[in-house]
Amino acid sequence: MAVIREAIERLELSGISKVAMGALGDPEVIPLWFGESDIATPAFIRDAAKAALDRGETFYSYSRGTAALRAGLKTYLDRLYGLDLHPDRISVAGSTMLSVVVACECLLTEGDEIILIGPYWPNVRVAAQLMGARNVDVRLRDDGTRWALDLADVAAAITSRTKAVYVNTPSNPTGWIMREAEGRALLDLCRRHGLGLIADEVYHRNVFVGRDPAPSFLEFAGDDEPVFVLNGFSKAWAMTGWRMGWMVTPTHLVEPMAVLAECNNTGATVFAQAGGLAALQEGEDFVASFVERTRNNRDIVMEVIGSHPKVRLLEPEGAFYAFPEIAGLTDSLAFCRTALQRAKVGIAAGYTFGAENEGHIRICFAIESERLRTALLRLRGLLDEL
Amino acid sequence: MAVIREAIERLELSGISKVAMGALGDPEVIPLWFGESDIATPAFIRDAAKAALDRGETFYSYSRGTAALRAGLKTYLDRLYGLDLHPDRISVAGSTMLSVVVACECLLTEGDEIILIGPYWPNVRVAAQLMGARNVDVRLRDDGTRWALDLADVAAAITSRTKAVYVNTPSNPTGWIMREAEGRALLDLCRRHGLGLIADEVYHRNVFVGRDPAPSFLEFAGDDEPVFVLNGFSKAWAMTGWRMGWMVTPTHLVEPMAVLAECNNTGATVFAQAGGLAALQEGEDFVASFVERTRNNRDIVMEVIGSHPKVRLLEPEGAFYAFPEIAGLTDSLAFCRTALQRAKVGIAAGYTFGAENEGHIRICFAIESERLRTALLRLRGLLDEL
Repeated sequence: MAVIREAIERLELSGISKVAMGALGDPEVIPLWFGESDIATPAFIRDAAKAALDRGETFYSYSRGTAALRAGLKTYLDRLYGLDLHPDRISVAGSTMLSVVVACECLLTEGDEIILIGPYWPNVRVAAQLMGARNVDVRLRDDGTRWALDLADVAAAITSRTKAVYVNTPSNPTGWIMREAEGRALLDLCRRHGLGLIADEVYHRNVFVGRDPAPSFLEFAGDDEPVFVLNGFSKAWAMTGWRMGWMVTPTHLVEPMAVLAECNNTGATVFAQAGGLAALQEGEDFVASFVERTRNNRDIVMEVIGSHPKVRLLEPEGAFYAFPEIAGLTDSLAFCRTALQRAKVGIAAGYTFGAENEGHIRICFAIESERLRTALLRLRGLLDEL
Repeated sequence: MAVIREAIERLELSGISKVAMGALGDPEVIPLWFGESDIATPAFIRDAAKAALDRGETFYSYSRGTAALRAGLKTYLDRLYGLDLHPDRISVAGSTMLSVVVACECLLTEGDEIILIGPYWPNVRVAAQLMGARNVDVRLRDDGTRWALDLADVAAAITSRTKAVYVNTPSNPTGWIMREAEGRALLDLCRRHGLGLIADEVYHRNVFVGRDPAPSFLEFAGDDEPVFVLNGFSKAWAMTGWRMGWMVTPTHLVEPMAVLAECNNTGATVFAQAGGLAALQEGEDFVASFVERTRNNRDIVMEVIGSHPKVRLLEPEGAFYAFPEIAGLTDSLAFCRTALQRAKVGIAAGYTFGAENEGHIRICFAIESERLRTALLRLRGLLDEL
């Protein structure tokens, strides 16, 4: 009898890591594979963490986050969305990803199903599978001008085993931003069927269309509904290496959330939390300048890749990814390996973002514009040869 | 139908947090409840993290840890135990606790049983329960002079559903150090029954009896056996707030371990890993001085608490906890609350460390000696009144 769970033995690297591992840090490769820019975290944020180290903030603190950062999150979220969130709902998490794990722990067990609105980031599927749950993918539709959520598709995917719906808005990899009406309708559907809702809003400030921040389930859902709104510092403030997120959870779960914070990783790195607070309090200029950079970069992607005759590319509304469909592409991983070897450009294979994406690639467009253009022109050359 | 899992709704704070929350940071309280000292992380470690921040090490890196830290861990572990570990076996984890979670994910699913050799730290039980597994507690025995593992007790607890055994050596809360013969026998039992073994060795350097480091399953188990050896930076180098651990896992799991690292928290805080490397490379003086402090403190605990007529206290062999049994104590939580309110001393309730420990309290003896003595004398006063 196998000692290690079969589900674990079967785990494979994502279509991102399969290509990237082994070439990470190769200076010849222009990396468009991971969800980050080439900008180090702003100095004022790093300085805040260094000052915390100088003050000796190296001890255990509250597992759900330091009092200062939790208060800072309440102030930030209340201001951003015009809310008055119950403080008990807010936790700091050791990465947004860990908050996905916590939400899955709260909602899923062996034999359950979770609907993943896709295309979606592959680690979410693994987090659900670790709990023994099966993912049922519901794909956004290309409505001719934008990605869009067809609620009937979600409704049709619900079975007696469905326990939760996961949605990511603004979306990695499509750049879709859920409209308020889409969000309210999805929440209503979850209410009618007694489903938990996991809303990953980590790109809430990476917005090109409509209001900044993007519409949030914090605005639609009640204090104590089974809705988990997940977010983090990585994407708005260039803090990917900090491994720090936050979550807003149902009010009555205050004690379970403390236990889960403790037993998953006993909180985020303590002195890093001082950096997070600085980001919330003094980071608006950086957020705005980063959105401007990526908006400009989006235009470059549309011009260089979107205009190619073999490409269909809906203009990203948010986040910082393009998810073009390439005519005739049937093996997205092979194409990414070719792009790495021949064009020295790192991109992510479409298949990893769920079923029906084998014809796509994901391009992260957060790096400096001219280097991005160089990489995109190389990719365009490959497309010409297809 | 409940949307949130019942197992989650039922979660309660540990017997440590139940007392500590609300009094955390109260300057009047002498804290002996958490597993840490009053020493901030040594400056050379903090400086290494600050230098990494200055170098802009704020990006994603390998989820299993930076190449430098993984290489540093191999050098450290090879030197410490006289081994030549396969590099694929070594991962950095975002806290030792998260490595417990990963090991549980690898071994447990709904309906399984895990044997917890206790008394044990309560978060381990929660981690197993999150996977849907049931804990079966096997208690170390008081053999008259020391805590000891009776292998027959473990064997008697094995059922057809048992999938794994968890052991923590040196032990929190008892201070037990597993002898080499005990370890080899336990591993053989696991082999005979096809069980995974989770060995939490985070106190490997906090040793008062026998060799430093304490005997490790790294020395007994083969490269590719289902043995998970977990460790971290918190306890030897005063790095509790850093949230950084490591794990040594079966060789063939190289790809699943990368996926699990990614999907649990995508690695430890990147610039903190530079601090971890400094600890491994330059931390021996600190490790030695900290052991000297805690050895001296152990003697103080034996003198002030161990000598009390109502107390039975086996001398701790390692870690930095005393786990006295108090004659007539039937509600350890109530006693801890009294200790906090009347003596202004923070201690942990025995019941939280598993069944049959209601007559115990846990005292962490890592703080400065005179302050420790003050706290212990206050506790002794309470014992006099019992």
